[in-house]
Amino acid sequence: MGVVVSLDSERKKPSLDGLIALVADELCDVNELIIRHMNSPVDLIPQLASHLIAAGGKRLRPVLTLASAKMCGYENGTRHIALSACVEFIHTATLLHDDVVDESDLRRGLASANAVFGNKASVLVGDYLFSRSFQLMVETGSLRVLDILANASAVIAEGEVLQLSSQNDLSGGEDRYFQVIRGKTAELFSAAAEVGGVIAGATDAEVKALRAYGDALGIAFQLVDDVLDYGGASAAMGKDVGDDFREGKATLPVLIAYAKADEAGRVFWERVIEDHEQEDADLEEALSLIDAADGLGETKARARQYGQDAKDALAVLPQTPVTHALGDVVDFVISRAY
Amino acid sequence: MGVVVSLDSERKKPSLDGLIALVADELCDVNELIIRHMNSPVDLIPQLASHLIAAGGKRLRPVLTLASAKMCGYENGTRHIALSACVEFIHTATLLHDDVVDESDLRRGLASANAVFGNKASVLVGDYLFSRSFQLMVETGSLRVLDILANASAVIAEGEVLQLSSQNDLSGGEDRYFQVIRGKTAELFSAAAEVGGVIAGATDAEVKALRAYGDALGIAFQLVDDVLDYGGASAAMGKDVGDDFREGKATLPVLIAYAKADEAGRVFWERVIEDHEQEDADLEEALSLIDAADGLGETKARARQYGQDAKDALAVLPQTPVTHALGDVVDFVISRAY
Repeated sequence: MGVVVSLDSERKKPSLDGLIALVADELCDVNELIIRHMNSPVDLIPQLASHLIAAGGKRLRPVLTLASAKMCGYENGTRHIALSACVEFIHTATLLHDDVVDESDLRRGLASANAVFGNKASVLVGDYLFSRSFQLMVETGSLRVLDILANASAVIAEGEVLQLSSQNDLSGGEDRYFQVIRGKTAELFSAAAEVGGVIAGATDAEVKALRAYGDALGIAFQLVDDVLDYGGASAAMGKDVGDDFREGKATLPVLIAYAKADEAGRVFWERVIEDHEQEDADLEEALSLIDAADGLGETKARARQYGQDAKDALAVLPQTPVTHALGDVVDFVISRAY
Repeated sequence: MGVVVSLDSERKKPSLDGLIALVADELCDVNELIIRHMNSPVDLIPQLASHLIAAGGKRLRPVLTLASAKMCGYENGTRHIALSACVEFIHTATLLHDDVVDESDLRRGLASANAVFGNKASVLVGDYLFSRSFQLMVETGSLRVLDILANASAVIAEGEVLQLSSQNDLSGGEDRYFQVIRGKTAELFSAAAEVGGVIAGATDAEVKALRAYGDALGIAFQLVDDVLDYGGASAAMGKDVGDDFREGKATLPVLIAYAKADEAGRVFWERVIEDHEQEDADLEEALSLIDAADGLGETKARARQYGQDAKDALAVLPQTPVTHALGDVVDFVISRAY
């Protein structure tokens, strides 16, 4: 399996623009469908939903569905539009419910919906969007697609619960960390790519490759997110440095530092993460311990490995401009950490 | 359209026992399926889910699915079992999310899951159960059933958001009140009855009658619940008297009292409901104003009307022992208010 697109430092800064240009018309249709389906005579629903959805974000997940459908030759129909909107609704519903969970104050550079509208509204509007997504899926009439997205929903929720129940626990180590991020993040990337291929009538090997691409890309994406929480371009993402730390999340940079820590370091991590007792200077100390253990460097290296896995998966697929652009997406995701 | 079963004061106290006896074997299978599907290697999921599901409750909604399938002659297969479990999962997920919403301290006589496990866990485990329900539905392979339950989910969520956004608002009057309870409560009763008929191959007229039965029964059920919140057998339900009042919900007993109030009464209701400023003696004053306006008596009368509508709908359906028992269910629901 060859490398489709190499990490090439001579080229311009990696971005999503190439892929988005290839599915621009479809993405317009998706945006229209999203706006139509998040409407309701109950005003609070479009108010709150548009707070998140209009804020835009990168639309990475719905673009994956459009891209995989196009790459696999989907032409006659609008099922890719409906499924792309589904994927965005599931993502938005998860963000809304995650706001309740994470007590985060910033999301995509805006005050979180939770801070503006309250916990209750976030939960219920999230439920509404999830239900709308479910309606759109049913309209596609494909039981195979429904099966993929129903399973994805359960895996995502399970990942979120696992993250919550292991929040202040260092004992699960890397295995549990990867189990959590595979559920809470990578599963929707996988499903988004997979359903695009399924409606296009892709072969089993192609569908498997799409899933593998989404899985590896999603893991790389989350690894980079977890790096950014301890520095880097975090301000540009609208996310505070140290959010994960303050919540006591045992993300990979922390687990690496904990594994390499001396006695004093272990006592520190157990206090701030497991006992969740934190003082003002602790974030600085955490950053220093992560730095000494090369926690961010190692996490980025793991992200690059998964990025390579994602590119390898593309080799199995039809080689089209979309396929090459999906390789660029990998570079873009990794580049956020640098 | 004749009355199938009359409110007959000479008979023994109305109960669900007759109907439950008719679907006892199926209900055992449903319980087994529920326990199997709420399992997960993530311990918090079965812990929290069993807190609610094992607590039992009346299983009224899943029993409606079993009953309508049986009444309409469903015989070969297990789709009624799967759909009955779906309905219970949707109900449980809604309760979990409602716990976040209502800040209620008691649910079915136990401390609410929310109080024991926290907001975050209630939201995420609710999502998991909803996803499991979605998986079970897909396994039935019926797009028509999926369509009904997807629509029901959206209507329920919309009703919950409408309730939230009109929480401290008396201006919507009875129209909005009925819109809210039709969404948050009656829709799942309707869908539960409808899908049982659909998988049994019932005629369009029968399916329509099942939906009408569920709708009217669900509204009667909620009217009685809203009566009980201001007295009656509330303690036996494990619900505190005055929960709705303290949350500033404009339920029908309040709306009736508000409509009939003199100037001082209107000022009182606007302060406690709209401004949500309450003092210790206010619940007593509210009870006294509701009593003077016969708010509970009128609400019960409305419940009896809807109960009659539910019975009228049964007249269109095959007349079987199940049908008669569904008439008794109406009497049971109404009798809770007395």
